[in-house]
Amino acid sequence: MSTLAAPAIRTLTVELGERSYPIHVGPDLLGNPAHLRPYLAGSQVMIVTNEAVAPLYLDALKRGLGEDLTVRQVILPDGEQTKTLASVERIWDALLEAGFNRRCTLIALGGGVIGDMTGYAAACYQRGVAFIQAPTTLLAQVDSSVGGKTGVNHPRGKNMIGAFWQPRAVLVDTATLKSLPPRELSAGLAEVIKYGLIRDIEFLGWLEANVSALRELDDALLIDAILRSCATKAAIVAEDETEQAVRALLNLGHTFGHAIEAHQGYGVWLHGEAVASGMAMAAALSQRLGWLSGDDVARSEALLRAAGLPTAAPAAMSADDFIARMRLDKKNLDARIRLVLLSALGQACIHDRLPPDELRAFIESYPRA
Amino acid sequence: MSTLAAPAIRTLTVELGERSYPIHVGPDLLGNPAHLRPYLAGSQVMIVTNEAVAPLYLDALKRGLGEDLTVRQVILPDGEQTKTLASVERIWDALLEAGFNRRCTLIALGGGVIGDMTGYAAACYQRGVAFIQAPTTLLAQVDSSVGGKTGVNHPRGKNMIGAFWQPRAVLVDTATLKSLPPRELSAGLAEVIKYGLIRDIEFLGWLEANVSALRELDDALLIDAILRSCATKAAIVAEDETEQAVRALLNLGHTFGHAIEAHQGYGVWLHGEAVASGMAMAAALSQRLGWLSGDDVARSEALLRAAGLPTAAPAAMSADDFIARMRLDKKNLDARIRLVLLSALGQACIHDRLPPDELRAFIESYPRA
Repeated sequence: MSTLAAPAIRTLTVELGERSYPIHVGPDLLGNPAHLRPYLAGSQVMIVTNEAVAPLYLDALKRGLGEDLTVRQVILPDGEQTKTLASVERIWDALLEAGFNRRCTLIALGGGVIGDMTGYAAACYQRGVAFIQAPTTLLAQVDSSVGGKTGVNHPRGKNMIGAFWQPRAVLVDTATLKSLPPRELSAGLAEVIKYGLIRDIEFLGWLEANVSALRELDDALLIDAILRSCATKAAIVAEDETEQAVRALLNLGHTFGHAIEAHQGYGVWLHGEAVASGMAMAAALSQRLGWLSGDDVARSEALLRAAGLPTAAPAAMSADDFIARMRLDKKNLDARIRLVLLSALGQACIHDRLPPDELRAFIESYPRA
Repeated sequence: MSTLAAPAIRTLTVELGERSYPIHVGPDLLGNPAHLRPYLAGSQVMIVTNEAVAPLYLDALKRGLGEDLTVRQVILPDGEQTKTLASVERIWDALLEAGFNRRCTLIALGGGVIGDMTGYAAACYQRGVAFIQAPTTLLAQVDSSVGGKTGVNHPRGKNMIGAFWQPRAVLVDTATLKSLPPRELSAGLAEVIKYGLIRDIEFLGWLEANVSALRELDDALLIDAILRSCATKAAIVAEDETEQAVRALLNLGHTFGHAIEAHQGYGVWLHGEAVASGMAMAAALSQRLGWLSGDDVARSEALLRAAGLPTAAPAAMSADDFIARMRLDKKNLDARIRLVLLSALGQACIHDRLPPDELRAFIESYPRA
C-alpha cells in the first residue's frame, strides 16, 4: 500500500466554460509559488484562516506567495459556530481597511468553514473578486473544493445565506492531513464514501479494500481517493451548476444530517459524522421502500463504521425534532420534504412523495446511539 | 406636450441570454396582475418597501398579486442611511421566519435603496432566488432597473458589498412619480441627462427641448425618457455585464459624486444631485484637457440647472476631501484614480493617467456652492 517515492502532483480540471479551474492534488503544494502565483488576479492578497490552522501552514503559504505582493491576513476562531455573517463582515472590514480593490485575491486556508466564508466574502466584495481554495481538511478537499457553493449559517438554518462563486484554483496539499485529528479524517471519509454510494459502485468496492490504509494516511491512496471524489462531484456539478436537478443527489445523508447538526448545535457532531448517520438512515429507509437489500444496507454500514463513523441517530433526538428541522431544508419545494435515497447501491435518487406518517414511523423505529 | 388618452404600456427587453427580462413602462401598472403574476417563481412573495412608499402603493401592489398567494412584507425606514447589511439581514430574517423556500419571489417596491437591498437579499437568500423590481422614483426607474447591480454601503464606502443579480422583470409605474417630491424628480433627471452626455447626443437635444415638460410630469414624455434611458443602459450592460470595460462609462459624474455623498454623509445631498455636480466637474475637467469647448460645458451646465440640479461642488469640501474618497472608488485598479470624462459632448471615455497634482489643482479651482 505504501509508496517509495513522494507521489507526483496530479491535476483535475473542473469544466465550467469560462469559469473552469484546476484542482492540484499532492504533498507540499502550499509553499510552492508555481501552484499559487498563476491564479492571483493582481498584487493584493488576503489570506483567511483560523486559529488552529494559522500556526501550522500560514508561514508556508506566505513563503509560497513571495515577497513582492501586498499580503494581509484575517485569522478567525476555529469551528462551525464561527460560520456567521459577522465573521464574513470581519473579512470585508479587513479588505476595506487594507484598501484592497477589485483585483485582489482571497485565499481560503483551512477547512470547509473557512472555505465557505472566504468564498462568500469574495463573491460579494465589490460585487465579486478572485479567490483560491487551499483546503486543509479531507472534508473540504473532497467536498467544498468543487461546486462553488459559498455561504454562512443563520440561526434558523445551515447555509441559508450564500452565493454560487467559483474559485480560480484549488490547491489540495495532502501533507496537511498529517496534522488533522483522526476524528476529522473520518468525517472527511464520510463524503468520500458518499460518492461511492450515490454513483460509483466500483469506487465503493475500492474504498472497502483501502479504508484502513486511508486512515493511516497513505499519500498515494489519499491522492487517488481525493481525485476520484472531486471528479465525481465535478461531473455532477458540470451537469447542473446551480442545483436545479441532479446536483441535489450530492445531498445524500444531508437532509437527516443537517437536522442532526442543527438540533445538537453546530460543531457537537462533526458535519461528516452527521452525514454518515444520515446516509445510514437513507440506506435503511431505502430498504424499507424495497429498493435496497439487507446486504446492501449492511455493506454501507460496515464501510461507514470501518471509516470510524457513526451510523445510529443521536440518542436524544425525536422524530419531531428531525421533521421540524427537515422542513426547513433548502431542497424542499412547496410543502413536501425532498429526500435523497438510494434506488440501488451506487445509485441515488430524489424522493418527495413519502407520506409524512411513514417518514415519522421510520425515524421513530431507527436505532439511536 | 400633454396627451389626450392615457399612454399605452410599453416594453423594453434587456437582452442577457437566459437571464433576459422585460421592463414594462406605463401608468398604473402596479395594480395589474397581468404584469406581475407571470414573473413569480412560485406562490411565496415577500414585498420589501419603506415607510414612505408603503402607505402609497403597498395595497395596490397586493391587489395586483391576488389572494391565492402567501404574501409577506418588510417595511424598512426610508433613506440612504438604511442601505446597510443590517437591513438586508432583516429581510433574510423575515424570509426564514416565514419559512420561504428557493421558489419564493422578492418584490422591491421603492427607490434605488430598496431595489439594491432587495436585489442583494434575493441574490444571497439560499444562494439566489427570484426578484422583481417595482421602482417608484425616477432615479431607480432609469438607473437601478437595468444592470443587475445590487448591494449595500459599508462605513468605508458606497456599494462595497453586493452582487450582480438580475431581476425577472421591472415594472415602472409612471403614476408613482406623481407622489415624488420635485427635488427627487430632479435627482432622477440627473441620470437621464447622463445617458445623453455619455453616448446619445440626439437625446441630449431632446432633453433640452423637453426638460420643463418632464418636470411637469407629462406622462407620454416621461415614458419616452425612461425607455430611452433604459435602452441606452441596457445596450451598454449587454456589452459588458460585469463591468470589465465599457460599463464603467455609466459612472460619469459618479467618482466625484460618490466622494460628495460620502463626505457630506449619505442622504444630505441626494445621489442624483451629487452626480449632477460630479458630471459638471467631469465636463469642466474635460474642457481643461482640451476635449470640450466652453460652449459644450455651458450647454451641459444649463441643462443640469434647467432640471433643477446643482453644478457647483459643496462649499465645505476641500481637494483633499475629494481625493481621499476618490482613492477608495471601486473603478480604481492599483494605485491610479480612474475618471470617466467626456472626449466630446455625447461621448464618454476613461482617463486614468491624470497626474495627481493636476487633479488636485483642478478640484481646488472648481467653483463651490
